[in-house]
Amino acid sequence: MSSTPTDFNVALVGAGFMGRAHSNAYRQVNAFFPELPYRVNRTVLVGRNPTTLAEQARILGWDSWSTDLDAVLRRPDIHAVDVTTSNNSHAEIAIKALEAGKIVLCEKPLAITVADARRMAEAARKAKLPTLIWHNYRRAPAATLAAQLIADGQLGEIRHVRAVYLQDWLLDDACPHLWRMSAEACGSGAHGDLNAHLIDMTRFLTGLEFAEVSALQTTFIPERRKPDGHGMGTVDVDDAFLFLARLSNGALASFEASRAAAGRKNHHRIEVNGTKGSIVWNFERMNELEFFSTDGELRSQGFRTIMCMHGAAHAYAGHYWPDGHVIGYEHTFTNALADFLAALHQGTPYRPDFADGVAAQEVLESAVASARTRQWVNVPHSQSFHGPTVTAAAAAVAGSTIGL
Amino acid sequence: MSSTPTDFNVALVGAGFMGRAHSNAYRQVNAFFPELPYRVNRTVLVGRNPTTLAEQARILGWDSWSTDLDAVLRRPDIHAVDVTTSNNSHAEIAIKALEAGKIVLCEKPLAITVADARRMAEAARKAKLPTLIWHNYRRAPAATLAAQLIADGQLGEIRHVRAVYLQDWLLDDACPHLWRMSAEACGSGAHGDLNAHLIDMTRFLTGLEFAEVSALQTTFIPERRKPDGHGMGTVDVDDAFLFLARLSNGALASFEASRAAAGRKNHHRIEVNGTKGSIVWNFERMNELEFFSTDGELRSQGFRTIMCMHGAAHAYAGHYWPDGHVIGYEHTFTNALADFLAALHQGTPYRPDFADGVAAQEVLESAVASARTRQWVNVPHSQSFHGPTVTAAAAAVAGSTIGL
Amino acid sequence: MSSTPTDFNVALVGAGFMGRAHSNAYRQVNAFFPELPYRVNRTVLVGRNPTTLAEQARILGWDSWSTDLDAVLRRPDIHAVDVTTSNNSHAEIAIKALEAGKIVLCEKPLAITVADARRMAEAARKAKLPTLIWHNYRRAPAATLAAQLIADGQLGEIRHVRAVYLQDWLLDDACPHLWRMSAEACGSGAHGDLNAHLIDMTRFLTGLEFAEVSALQTTFIPERRKPDGHGMGTVDVDDAFLFLARLSNGALASFEASRAAAGRKNHHRIEVNGTKGSIVWNFERMNELEFFSTDGELRSQGFRTIMCMHGAAHAYAGHYWPDGHVIGYEHTFTNALADFLAALHQGTPYRPDFADGVAAQEVLESAVASARTRQWVNVPHSQSFHGPTVTAAAAAVAGSTIGL
Amino acid sequence: MSSTPTDFNVALVGAGFMGRAHSNAYRQVNAFFPELPYRVNRTVLVGRNPTTLAEQARILGWDSWSTDLDAVLRRPDIHAVDVTTSNNSHAEIAIKALEAGKIVLCEKPLAITVADARRMAEAARKAKLPTLIWHNYRRAPAATLAAQLIADGQLGEIRHVRAVYLQDWLLDDACPHLWRMSAEACGSGAHGDLNAHLIDMTRFLTGLEFAEVSALQTTFIPERRKPDGHGMGTVDVDDAFLFLARLSNGALASFEASRAAAGRKNHHRIEVNGTKGSIVWNFERMNELEFFSTDGELRSQGFRTIMCMHGAAHAYAGHYWPDGHVIGYEHTFTNALADFLAALHQGTPYRPDFADGVAAQEVLESAVASARTRQWVNVPHSQSFHGPTVTAAAAAVAGSTIGL
Repeated sequence: MSSTPTDFNVALVGAGFMGRAHSNAYRQVNAFFPELPYRVNRTVLVGRNPTTLAEQARILGWDSWSTDLDAVLRRPDIHAVDVTTSNNSHAEIAIKALEAGKIVLCEKPLAITVADARRMAEAARKAKLPTLIWHNYRRAPAATLAAQLIADGQLGEIRHVRAVYLQDWLLDDACPHLWRMSAEACGSGAHGDLNAHLIDMTRFLTGLEFAEVSALQTTFIPERRKPDGHGMGTVDVDDAFLFLARLSNGALASFEASRAAAGRKNHHRIEVNGTKGSIVWNFERMNELEFFSTDGELRSQGFRTIMCMHGAAHAYAGHYWPDGHVIGYEHTFTNALADFLAALHQGTPYRPDFADGVAAQEVLESAVASARTRQWVNVPHSQSFHGPTVTAAAAAVAGSTIGL
Repeated sequence: MSSTPTDFNVALVGAGFMGRAHSNAYRQVNAFFPELPYRVNRTVLVGRNPTTLAEQARILGWDSWSTDLDAVLRRPDIHAVDVTTSNNSHAEIAIKALEAGKIVLCEKPLAITVADARRMAEAARKAKLPTLIWHNYRRAPAATLAAQLIADGQLGEIRHVRAVYLQDWLLDDACPHLWRMSAEACGSGAHGDLNAHLIDMTRFLTGLEFAEVSALQTTFIPERRKPDGHGMGTVDVDDAFLFLARLSNGALASFEASRAAAGRKNHHRIEVNGTKGSIVWNFERMNELEFFSTDGELRSQGFRTIMCMHGAAHAYAGHYWPDGHVIGYEHTFTNALADFLAALHQGTPYRPDFADGVAAQEVLESAVASARTRQWVNVPHSQSFHGPTVTAAAAAVAGSTIGL
Repeated sequence: MSSTPTDFNVALVGAGFMGRAHSNAYRQVNAFFPELPYRVNRTVLVGRNPTTLAEQARILGWDSWSTDLDAVLRRPDIHAVDVTTSNNSHAEIAIKALEAGKIVLCEKPLAITVADARRMAEAARKAKLPTLIWHNYRRAPAATLAAQLIADGQLGEIRHVRAVYLQDWLLDDACPHLWRMSAEACGSGAHGDLNAHLIDMTRFLTGLEFAEVSALQTTFIPERRKPDGHGMGTVDVDDAFLFLARLSNGALASFEASRAAAGRKNHHRIEVNGTKGSIVWNFERMNELEFFSTDGELRSQGFRTIMCMHGAAHAYAGHYWPDGHVIGYEHTFTNALADFLAALHQGTPYRPDFADGVAAQEVLESAVASARTRQWVNVPHSQSFHGPTVTAAAAAVAGSTIGL
Repeated sequence: MSSTPTDFNVALVGAGFMGRAHSNAYRQVNAFFPELPYRVNRTVLVGRNPTTLAEQARILGWDSWSTDLDAVLRRPDIHAVDVTTSNNSHAEIAIKALEAGKIVLCEKPLAITVADARRMAEAARKAKLPTLIWHNYRRAPAATLAAQLIADGQLGEIRHVRAVYLQDWLLDDACPHLWRMSAEACGSGAHGDLNAHLIDMTRFLTGLEFAEVSALQTTFIPERRKPDGHGMGTVDVDDAFLFLARLSNGALASFEASRAAAGRKNHHRIEVNGTKGSIVWNFERMNELEFFSTDGELRSQGFRTIMCMHGAAHAYAGHYWPDGHVIGYEHTFTNALADFLAALHQGTPYRPDFADGVAAQEVLESAVASARTRQWVNVPHSQSFHGPTVTAAAAAVAGSTIGL
């Protein structure tokens, strides 16, 4: 900390909900992680609509704004590009940025197709640039603790994963036709939006891959009024999407994403059962982890609720407030960013990267194929997308000469 | 209540765990439901092992015991036969009893095959005798409230059912090979034992049938030491069995039964989401129902935990203790018996009967077929097993001349 | 179990809610505890109203009924008298029964005054007869586990007890004036009814006594319509009663009983914090115990929810159903009775006995004095009421010659 | 929002835990509340230690730092002074700042004595300057909803408040002697730190005042090792402090603060029962409110868990993330600041202000007197500390000429 931190200049593409969340992480990361060797700058906000962009840049604290992505990519002072646009534009923007020598941080799902996702990972590999996919939930302290307990063998061999991500905002007939309901923009509905998280969490927590899947989906309300009031729009994505999976070690798993589960607001819950214990994590109580262990006396075994905010015991917790003072959704992003920057500096791989995004995409797409064909589908595994050599990238940031 | 109650003489076949639970119901029903027009007598306990049977009969309060079922069935004073033997013997005993003119109450699953289950229901139809299948969980006050709320339209149209029945007693490698691990005795493992309940609860709560299923099963420990210590026995039933289903109205549902979910003791949990609300019931907190409704102010909507023991508001509750004084597992049987006897007296159909057992069996068997073929399987629906004319049966009990 | 069990003939005085609960225990104890050396007989139900008594005896399964207590006490075949009448009659009936050589089981609170309670305990001491006070909650498996964990030192030194017993049935203005609202019949309101339990649980769980108390009480609705519709009755007992206490080791404790806590049905919750751990027990989830321990890794410490129904690990559980199959309120009585009978046979003291009833009464009365005087009150401790020599009493039951 | 926001320049005194939390609020408030008419500037961080202050200012984003408070108070561009130093210095700093014409925001408890607190409020009144006391918990969306429901009459007449604020960090003998354990620095221990919050929440939620209190306190570990390792320091403040209270309408209430409750990290829980309903709020699940209402059908009444993050229904929620995306501890400060600035602009009173701080101090001090004298103590009520005329103050901020 004694040395002057290096500038890390970010261009953010897109200023919607996710743009706000990422902006917050850039604004907060140095305050909560003062030991980071980078000073994160919100350099430029990139978007389409000049009339709203200036205001958004002001509110979110970006130094400038631009509607010309290509011009931004040509700027040598920009070290990283963050992609938060609609799913169908991720590939083009990310690849262009990588080719321009920029580090890329991309919202999930990585793309609409596995083919696109692989092109993105391949572009990163070629460019020797580190990447990040914003599977932010890994970085809740409680989720990280769950992964640590499992990695330490405290659950034994994994037998079951059951995960649901339930919302209810599409129950309402009056909700208009949004871009999230269009296959062209999103590829899928609840599946790509919500199951993407469950798939990543499963891989993160268990270290297992998906072997095969069988899926079931539906669209409860196939037409919705257009937002401009002119006619109806077809909902050609799923409202709800379930699938069963056999994992690589023979464990059985089930997944469900729905936007039509009354009373469930952002109910992202995952349970993992192993031969020696179990964990349950539920985002709506994100600072808590439920943990069952067969260790110790039989009489006092039970699911314990761990408040994961002890500075000396839980990841990230010491960067915030005293024990028991809970943090919120936004800091899953802050923590991810801090880890990414630390990895960048140390020259170690950051996970999840684009290769993880490809893996999740392979499961998503296999499940879509299963829902369509009504068959079990084997999940392919791309093994070739190795993590990039981040040391060089870090050096590049330090020297403001990204893309050696 | 002023008139003298009629004797209702029961023969119980089998004295294992279920025999104990049913014995308790026979012992308790008149104390908690004093208005019943029948005095329930534990007349004879039927089993195989004369050395233990006498002692069991004494402990459980049966007036006599016998190893000769046929002789018992010939006794004109026996009104009802309760079958709690292993699954593979249900059909033979139940059909024989029905043919002997006895009311039959049978444990679930009704049989090992749909064919057997249909023969049982057909026998009941022919004999014009009422039947009961012990899907006892319907009679928890909270489960009954859930069904009432749904029937009253408070959930709107059903969109989702997700149900799990999780135990962990098979995690232990040291657990020996029991009859519950043999396909010959049980047909299936966790599936027939636990999913049977989930299927019945789904039909009970929603009033919907199953359209199609896709299943996944496994056996984690394929061999276990024989109880007598001589060699290993093959576990040829499932340890865990999951399936997806599309219900008759297009709702999507998922089901999971496992005996290998660490920390889950008898975790029988079902959630139903509709367009206007949701319910969650979890047997381990069997007196509570979680209920979400979109009625009322948006600001104060949430899942409410209803303590279902108010005598003036909740089924069965007024028969037990003051509000908030919880009841246990065993009274799901007591309540079922009380309802059955009341229906018998009133000449109204009791549910679930053998026809419901057939319906559950059709789902179970379809799921087994799906797990084997790795295909979606359409669930057949037997429509021909109408409820029997119970009025005649009740008259027969009153006149001690069952089987007119 | 091979020998023939001895008859244990009970006379129950009073047939209200508690009479029903006790009758159930007598009806059930031999079925669930077959190893007991006594066959419990519901010999005679004693009450005042001959028109309802016969019917109650029939429903609850008593062999006979009587309105003449004295005559019943003269019967040599009666071994035990159970007192469930209104609080103000406990002393007279219990003392008379002890003087007649009967074992006495008495509802709580033991009496209306400490003086009466001491007379009762003294009568038991003189008669050398064992006694039981129905502080039934001690015998929930989870409460027993809590006591065991504390006795084993797993909580370290006790620092805090906080206990509430909340109901809401008196919120309703329309609830008429009942005997429970009369100081003459009950001595106090929520205090004697509900705080009595909290005081006993505190003594049971912690093994500590009460040093001093400061209390606060109120009656929210001072007059209620008489049940016969003729005029209003004065409510001269408390609706709510709170007190602070310093326990014998310096721990700080708080207690609250209320019948006016909206939404709380039978919310009997006690939390104990020690230097090494904590427990929480809540009757409404009576089969669960929450337990926190500072043992083990810091990262995975949390309140665990123990399902206390494992036959090999939890008191009483093995007498009922498989793991995770919950039991209800009534079996706290069954378990107490089973323990009492076992102690009787073994010649060991049973707790809680009348001496424990005296100790609770001393706290209750001290708190009442504090509420009246608005001063801290030191709680006296009667040390002289030793447990009776139960061996002789057991011999007496065996020989049907109680009161040697 | 179209007009340029006015600068609002803050001087923060103290850079400990609270300084960090407040700095965060100043850093975040404009991003989450872009409609505010002020641009909040972190102008100067004031402290004692120049070697650490510069670094803290850098990390927390303050434009400058100073060790000379008086010089800072002379700066005309400083609009507001935020006091987060130890309790015993609040009065001097706040009064000096008010006399210098600065708006003052002060940590709780307002002071160590009522006399000091009154001097502070009087200084604010004289200076006609608005004040804020950082009772931040009022501004959790769920706590605000609770207050709204009660204000709207949904709980009827209040009968009970029971509140606990439990931590466990002082259980450890090895924890050294900190300034929080010194009466000189803090006045009291858990009482002033934690009960202060419970008292304010009670006043906020119920709108009631405290009539009389009876208290009990203790110090479990009276000496602790000094941090510098040289000898032991006396702990002359309470580790735990309980009190009973009668509120102004006759409701009964209980309060407990402890730093020795094993397993409780920041367990700040308050329950309010009224004649028509109840609420429970627990900070550790700060985004949830439990609400019971006697409205509607009896059968479906229960405590509902409301996720208080719906933008259209819950205070502050619309400023953050979509429904169900929880926020953390820090935003209780952000929300308070936003409300304060809005009130400042609108010329409406902000609550809680110094007058509220006085009211809380009166209860705190009465409770301390009760613990010392072992008597019930009547709580005085200062009625004279009216809110200041904030319109003038707002004009002053706008014109950068505070202290007209």
